[in-house]
Amino acid sequence: MERASIFHRPTDQYAYPFQRDTLHIRIQTKKGNVSLIELIYGDQYEWNKNKWMTRTTPLTRIGTDALFDYWQAEVSPPYRRLRYGFHIQGDSDRFIFTEKGYFTEPPEDPNQYFCFPYLHTNEVFRAPDWVRDTVWYQIFPERFANGNPSLNPSETKPWGSEEPTAANFFGGDFLGIIQKLDYLKELGINGIYLTPIFKARSNHKYDTIDYFEIDPQFGDKQSFKQLVDACHAKGIRIMLDAVFNHSGFYFPPFQDVWKNGEKSRYKDWFYTNQFPLNGGERPNYATFSFVETMPKLNTQNKEVKNYLLDVGRYWVKEFDIDGWRLDVANEIDHAFWREFRKEVKSIKPELFILGEIWHDSIAWLRGDQFDSVMNYPFLTKAIHFFAKGMLSASEFREQMTTVMMQYPDTVNETLFNLVGSHDTPRLLTECDGNVEKAKLIYTFLFTFIGTPCLYYGDEIGLSGGMDPGCRRCMIWDEKQQNHELLAHIKRLIQLRKTEPLLANNGKLFFLPIENGIAYVKENKDCKCLIILNPSSEELKVTLPFSLKGRKIIDLLLNQEYMMESEELIAVIKPYDASILQFQEGSP
Amino acid sequence: MERASIFHRPTDQYAYPFQRDTLHIRIQTKKGNVSLIELIYGDQYEWNKNKWMTRTTPLTRIGTDALFDYWQAEVSPPYRRLRYGFHIQGDSDRFIFTEKGYFTEPPEDPNQYFCFPYLHTNEVFRAPDWVRDTVWYQIFPERFANGNPSLNPSETKPWGSEEPTAANFFGGDFLGIIQKLDYLKELGINGIYLTPIFKARSNHKYDTIDYFEIDPQFGDKQSFKQLVDACHAKGIRIMLDAVFNHSGFYFPPFQDVWKNGEKSRYKDWFYTNQFPLNGGERPNYATFSFVETMPKLNTQNKEVKNYLLDVGRYWVKEFDIDGWRLDVANEIDHAFWREFRKEVKSIKPELFILGEIWHDSIAWLRGDQFDSVMNYPFLTKAIHFFAKGMLSASEFREQMTTVMMQYPDTVNETLFNLVGSHDTPRLLTECDGNVEKAKLIYTFLFTFIGTPCLYYGDEIGLSGGMDPGCRRCMIWDEKQQNHELLAHIKRLIQLRKTEPLLANNGKLFFLPIENGIAYVKENKDCKCLIILNPSSEELKVTLPFSLKGRKIIDLLLNQEYMMESEELIAVIKPYDASILQFQEGSP
Repeated sequence: MERASIFHRPTDQYAYPFQRDTLHIRIQTKKGNVSLIELIYGDQYEWNKNKWMTRTTPLTRIGTDALFDYWQAEVSPPYRRLRYGFHIQGDSDRFIFTEKGYFTEPPEDPNQYFCFPYLHTNEVFRAPDWVRDTVWYQIFPERFANGNPSLNPSETKPWGSEEPTAANFFGGDFLGIIQKLDYLKELGINGIYLTPIFKARSNHKYDTIDYFEIDPQFGDKQSFKQLVDACHAKGIRIMLDAVFNHSGFYFPPFQDVWKNGEKSRYKDWFYTNQFPLNGGERPNYATFSFVETMPKLNTQNKEVKNYLLDVGRYWVKEFDIDGWRLDVANEIDHAFWREFRKEVKSIKPELFILGEIWHDSIAWLRGDQFDSVMNYPFLTKAIHFFAKGMLSASEFREQMTTVMMQYPDTVNETLFNLVGSHDTPRLLTECDGNVEKAKLIYTFLFTFIGTPCLYYGDEIGLSGGMDPGCRRCMIWDEKQQNHELLAHIKRLIQLRKTEPLLANNGKLFFLPIENGIAYVKENKDCKCLIILNPSSEELKVTLPFSLKGRKIIDLLLNQEYMMESEELIAVIKPYDASILQFQEGSP
Repeated sequence: MERASIFHRPTDQYAYPFQRDTLHIRIQTKKGNVSLIELIYGDQYEWNKNKWMTRTTPLTRIGTDALFDYWQAEVSPPYRRLRYGFHIQGDSDRFIFTEKGYFTEPPEDPNQYFCFPYLHTNEVFRAPDWVRDTVWYQIFPERFANGNPSLNPSETKPWGSEEPTAANFFGGDFLGIIQKLDYLKELGINGIYLTPIFKARSNHKYDTIDYFEIDPQFGDKQSFKQLVDACHAKGIRIMLDAVFNHSGFYFPPFQDVWKNGEKSRYKDWFYTNQFPLNGGERPNYATFSFVETMPKLNTQNKEVKNYLLDVGRYWVKEFDIDGWRLDVANEIDHAFWREFRKEVKSIKPELFILGEIWHDSIAWLRGDQFDSVMNYPFLTKAIHFFAKGMLSASEFREQMTTVMMQYPDTVNETLFNLVGSHDTPRLLTECDGNVEKAKLIYTFLFTFIGTPCLYYGDEIGLSGGMDPGCRRCMIWDEKQQNHELLAHIKRLIQLRKTEPLLANNGKLFFLPIENGIAYVKENKDCKCLIILNPSSEELKVTLPFSLKGRKIIDLLLNQEYMMESEELIAVIKPYDASILQFQEGSP
């Protein structure tokens, strides 16, 4: 066995509270190298004294990627303390692996073992309960619906009359969203993520001028309150975008430093020690990227911190928003986010905190900072595989497993899965206009583990390349909408509501089939098998369960079958999918 | 190459701010498997645009243990943002390793790389500056010195008249310590760690009755204030023991629950849902271990949290203590410790926070909780190797490397290294009374990376087995003290003060010699080589540096040499050590 390929550490996804009384212990080993792993565990204070000491439980192989097998056990230590080691068996050798190394027999001293010192109920990672059942809908307010033309900025273009550019305006606003809530309700979504709405210059509003004011092109505080209330009345939650990494150029404190340099009382609000400030290609102050109009805020400065925490509190307290999405979240210091969490959750414990992080996000997902992050790897891999055919089925399966195995199950359950946003090309465009492929990707999005988010207009077939192309005006003319796509997405959203298993109340594992993707979601009552055929050929999959005498429901087709034979071969048409549900417990 | 044995993740010891403008990037690979690693790095926002994109720097192999080589690079990204990958070369193959996997050529898209998003100066892990230069001395107050017999508990035994038991008293107190400060000053220590001093029943005082009162057998608040002031006047810092995991049985809130059960207003201060409370072998309430007289405090309860935070603040604010040592620290929830840190550091930013954790402590050493932990693996391995001969030299070297490689360098610099405490057998007893072996272990303790702690009396040869044996009365009769040991320890403490390199201002690496232990500490000015001979045979070590024409100082013997030949062979007598210093920069 390759010992140097075994990895475990009693933290992060390798050892975590899963539920109030249950811990998960996970370990990775070289792919195919290990045949069996057992957890040896007990309470250190009665080690050797009773049967608890010698308790063992097998680990389940929960995933395999290109290099590793991942194994996990669930344990409920009666006194909440756990010392543990692994009994690892290969084809020709076996040993005990503990914190202190490798042994032929279990060491007697509990101090030799790994230690998970205490299962505290407040350390079970958990996004607010409602998040798990939420289908998100991302709105770029300037482009969703223009309900109040009197608010239009000067030089507003007629709706959809031209391609979006970095500078043009079409007049979308809050009233427009309010007027379309029935549409959204019928679509089935129950969470709206609004990109920034605070006073700013640009059409995207990521260049904040005033964090306490609504941008006048969208409405005012009264109309925003109407929007929140109207959403809540329909059971729709609403999340705002917090752009705290940087302000806009016209943010008054920055203007003060820009004009008064070293004499400005705000000089420490930004990162610079050179005055006067100079913009250009390489500003002499820190910025988002190198954008001179987006000066980075010094979140280590007490005044800045208090100012931004005030912002965080204000919109929750006064407007009862349900979530904060945090822009460029990983370039702000962890200490700031810890305080932010404490402050906003003290006002509304069920507030959702979502970070924009494109990379490995474990350092923000340890329970003290965010509830979730935007799952960009999900987007990238789904497009590479289903839309572009850049990966084989096994590569896709392995790479999705790698991403899942980065985090505890508790994190994966509410990762914010997306297949398009204001920062990426439209999904349909990535699919070269192929609606079948797009539909398949949505089936994946709505049945995988995590919470799905639709980008406005994707459901009716809006297209567009990298931004600003992906920020076209929503098409409200039903004749121009793609009804096939819309019906498919509505059906998927409905399924998520009627089938708890699809909305994450279970475990997910891949089946190692060829040429297609198949995964099972299961809980103690029920099992779902999702089969996706990403190719232009028919896909035949022999199901790995004995189903004789059991009822099978095809959830997409809404048909029931009773299995008569032992073996079932599912046949999936090109670019089609099957969502099959089996009742456990039936004979 | 064994790809499944390569491990890196952009967090913890693998990627961390080392100094204000410098990051460390560390990776582990299978031992002997890799010949060269280069870091490919740049700023994601100018990737591909200028030379920064293609910058590379080699990683240094900083350690090797039984299974892995560890490599580290130091980089200073000009805009504080870093994307990076590794160019890994083996004997017969080479590849690029990034967050997204393995490539033959560096990927073009910076999103494919590992991301360390931003180097924030407040995220450089740093214990207070004074800690690095501190030599600690742990005092068990009941047994150090009896200065005021009028405070003696009833049935106090004459000093040292019998073996310590779980129940007997000898009357040590604050005045005793004050009277012995000159002794401690002369010994050279400059930090005192006092085991608990608050009102309690037992002789060890880990069963607190009142966290706001001094135990009357030690003195009162006035005499404690005198002790702190007297220490400070001599440049000695003072650290108290915070026993927050559990209270004592006679803690009034627990007494209230014990008597009034479910009706007690304190019932949620402890972990139980069964009334009345029942003690015995398996109490029906949570306890430390299964000790019925040590009920576990519910630190998730707001009142308990505020009460304990008050305790934390009170002794800092009113008595100006310099540190808190946290008993059973890992069985208390992380959220509590985050608040604790914020609260006590807001009163005294240079306060030291030290956790009692016997296992892998990374989850408490991420900058938001503790400054350091008690380094028990240091103790265990030193005793196993030097005292008991249970490990070979290479095993010891490898195991010490494993421990060091668990943490960032910034953490290792102030780990609290100990070779004995009130919870372990005395070092001299572990050495079976062999003073030579004990001396060698002290040489190791005082020259290795980390801050050393002496357990009271170890310096004069106090002996004793597992507690209560290790809690004997200090011997003040100089005729009964071991002067050889004392002189050796004084010399080592002095060396640490005069040679900054010995007090951690440098990097440490082991030399792979046989039958002995040799390590180099170096900074840009200077190099020290420490050679320890743990055996009864003479040890000869050929130095791996060219030393011709350079001045060598033997710091233990205080002798200078000038090297004439290219090669130097150091000869170390049985159980002896050499601390050789070379000036860099001499020809």
